[in-house]
Amino acid sequence: MTSNLYGSTNYGTNYGTNYGTYGTDAYGNTYDTSTYGTAADANTYGANRTSYDPTTGSYDQHIDYDRDAYTRRHHREQMDDSGRYYHRDVDRDTSGLDNTRRVHKEYSNPNTGTSYHRDSTYDRSNLTDSAADSQIMAPVHKVAVIQWHIKNLDPEYNHGQAVSYITAAASDGASIAVLPEYHLCGWAPESPLFASLASQYQTYLDSYCNLAKKLNINIVPGTIIEAHKTDKSSDENDILLYNTACFISSRGQILGKYRKKNIWHPERPHLTSSATDPHEVIETDLGKVGLLICWDLAFPEAFRELIAKGAEIIIIPTYWGKLDASPAGLAINPESERLFLDSTLTSRCFENTCAVIFANAAGPSDTFLGMSRIVLPFIGPVKSMGAEEGYMVADLDMSVLDVAEDNYKVRQDIKSEGWYYSYRHDQLTGK
Amino acid sequence: MTSNLYGSTNYGTNYGTNYGTYGTDAYGNTYDTSTYGTAADANTYGANRTSYDPTTGSYDQHIDYDRDAYTRRHHREQMDDSGRYYHRDVDRDTSGLDNTRRVHKEYSNPNTGTSYHRDSTYDRSNLTDSAADSQIMAPVHKVAVIQWHIKNLDPEYNHGQAVSYITAAASDGASIAVLPEYHLCGWAPESPLFASLASQYQTYLDSYCNLAKKLNINIVPGTIIEAHKTDKSSDENDILLYNTACFISSRGQILGKYRKKNIWHPERPHLTSSATDPHEVIETDLGKVGLLICWDLAFPEAFRELIAKGAEIIIIPTYWGKLDASPAGLAINPESERLFLDSTLTSRCFENTCAVIFANAAGPSDTFLGMSRIVLPFIGPVKSMGAEEGYMVADLDMSVLDVAEDNYKVRQDIKSEGWYYSYRHDQLTGK
Repeated sequence: MTSNLYGSTNYGTNYGTNYGTYGTDAYGNTYDTSTYGTAADANTYGANRTSYDPTTGSYDQHIDYDRDAYTRRHHREQMDDSGRYYHRDVDRDTSGLDNTRRVHKEYSNPNTGTSYHRDSTYDRSNLTDSAADSQIMAPVHKVAVIQWHIKNLDPEYNHGQAVSYITAAASDGASIAVLPEYHLCGWAPESPLFASLASQYQTYLDSYCNLAKKLNINIVPGTIIEAHKTDKSSDENDILLYNTACFISSRGQILGKYRKKNIWHPERPHLTSSATDPHEVIETDLGKVGLLICWDLAFPEAFRELIAKGAEIIIIPTYWGKLDASPAGLAINPESERLFLDSTLTSRCFENTCAVIFANAAGPSDTFLGMSRIVLPFIGPVKSMGAEEGYMVADLDMSVLDVAEDNYKVRQDIKSEGWYYSYRHDQLTGK
Repeated sequence: MTSNLYGSTNYGTNYGTNYGTYGTDAYGNTYDTSTYGTAADANTYGANRTSYDPTTGSYDQHIDYDRDAYTRRHHREQMDDSGRYYHRDVDRDTSGLDNTRRVHKEYSNPNTGTSYHRDSTYDRSNLTDSAADSQIMAPVHKVAVIQWHIKNLDPEYNHGQAVSYITAAASDGASIAVLPEYHLCGWAPESPLFASLASQYQTYLDSYCNLAKKLNINIVPGTIIEAHKTDKSSDENDILLYNTACFISSRGQILGKYRKKNIWHPERPHLTSSATDPHEVIETDLGKVGLLICWDLAFPEAFRELIAKGAEIIIIPTYWGKLDASPAGLAINPESERLFLDSTLTSRCFENTCAVIFANAAGPSDTFLGMSRIVLPFIGPVKSMGAEEGYMVADLDMSVLDVAEDNYKVRQDIKSEGWYYSYRHDQLTGK
């Protein structure tokens, strides 16, 4: 009976009028103004902690108090340096009869207007305190991956496909959409058109920036080949082609660019690698993001460098087909490249306690593998596409990364004094 | 009709009386003495090449000649520096009607008495020349992995299990047998017995060396905890515990030892890591071998260092259980550690164009995962055990590594001038 009261009467209703609906900003008044710092003083139990930093405006409250006769509430709110606001209540039954916890989380980013809340219940008995805390605080992102039969040398068609898929994904509530590698022009380096189209990259980038802002969605527009004049030449025709991914914020800003470093062997005669440039992390609303491209994913070094710099999500536009295996490889296993991708993407998440967002070109049948997916440690593919054209939206629960790092402590090892391995780029950059 | 003659009359019979049966040395007379260097002079077509190095005794013959009216033979034999002899004939139908190739291979190692022959047919149309050549020349090893419920602090029982399984594997023709990590005493570091048993490691090592010689089989006796006095102390009781794997040749010699570097977190208070010692490759009859242990497999750096030094086979004694996932991790996916092992072992083979021999502790149910397996690029697990006690013998076809490297060129990249990544150990050792 105590459980019943706890469950039905006292949870999920008290603050109902203040909860925001997804994408609006209607909640938060109760905590931010009238009751902040006061409610905890009544019926206090356990450790009270309230801190406020007047310089940054960040605050942090960590209080257990009796919400009512049946419910003890653990309340915490926090604002980070960039103004993002996190809030959660965890309620539990004071009788001890009901072992579940009822969690209310809120998240708001005033820079982007993004906000959401989430209510959930979990069984506390399975969770350590730190894991439970991270499950409580970390956000869940709605992620869209997009794949289609990319038409060679037809940027208008491909761009049109991209825009319509991104628009649909945004209307499904996705906070980010990711396209495949070579999504604008496919791969046709022998055609003179291929290089000349690469000089139009800015037009398409501008279009995606406008779309991102209009739809309030982050976009990684796969990769676009960019033609750049070489530094050493004054000849306008003396250009280098870079295979470039970028991260466009939901404000329409390009937050970071990455040029493919580990170029697939048959592509090497045509493209220029970022070579010894370090891998860099991009600060985004979703967290710290690293961009890699296609064959890069075979190189654990690329991930490690990003992870060492704090990357949480690795986004990988890809153009990987069944026939990237040699005839001899296909004779050994016709599904070898599917196995390569499936095993490696999951392994990368475990070994780096990171998330992977993978968007690969799809079809026609027996060529590009699709398999676009969201991957997490512990779980492997959260959700995966086949080889069909289309898009998929899946939840990327960032709390899983904290649970994984709490378990495997890979980032802790990498950061530790005297770790056994380090990287050329660390030496190059002195970091 | 031409194909019929080619297939039935002229292949697989001519040298039948000279072919060795597995494990004997009855073949080779025809090539080594009476006809070597002469047969090729009759009916010659294509490039003839015969070289002989009087210093090392190695010879290399590369000849195409018409074996008879229907059969063109491509013949090659070679002896390497350590006296290992390779030989193969590839016959094809001169009419062109039959596109298959019939291959006869022989291998002999006079140092160990190991020899075998293999006859096979393949469809030439699927193979590039280099891949076909490597498929033809590379040996196939019969590999045994062994797993059982290891009893804590009971080395006599565990050693007895190991000896009986190794003996059975040898009688099945295995050329190597691999045991799990902690195979002698399990894991019970809180017991005073644990450290004192670790001082007896040499007794068991000697036993395995004798067994290897007696059975003519290579043995990696999982890991054995070794107690060593610290350099700095004169106190006999001031010891360090190393978790050590070694490779014992079929002559009963310890060819190399490795102390676990990346120690699993709960073990760190009890064991000493090899820390900044480089990973070293061991030259064996099976090829170049690297030893890693359990949690090491989560570190791609460990593999890369071995691969950069030429390792072809990575052998990984392991003690990995379902409960190595935290309660929070298990709540997310009760099968997380199975997924970790399955994806990572396969990914390592693709990303390093190497083979993995994995021997893990098994059961009781819901604890140690077993899953001992032989893994190759393209294929993933060639064959895998479940969680049962026992052993398994599977073919490890080294030619797959050549096909993989031919496809992915990972080793080529790692060795190339100005490669983008390198390792601390490279800097430490100046290599």
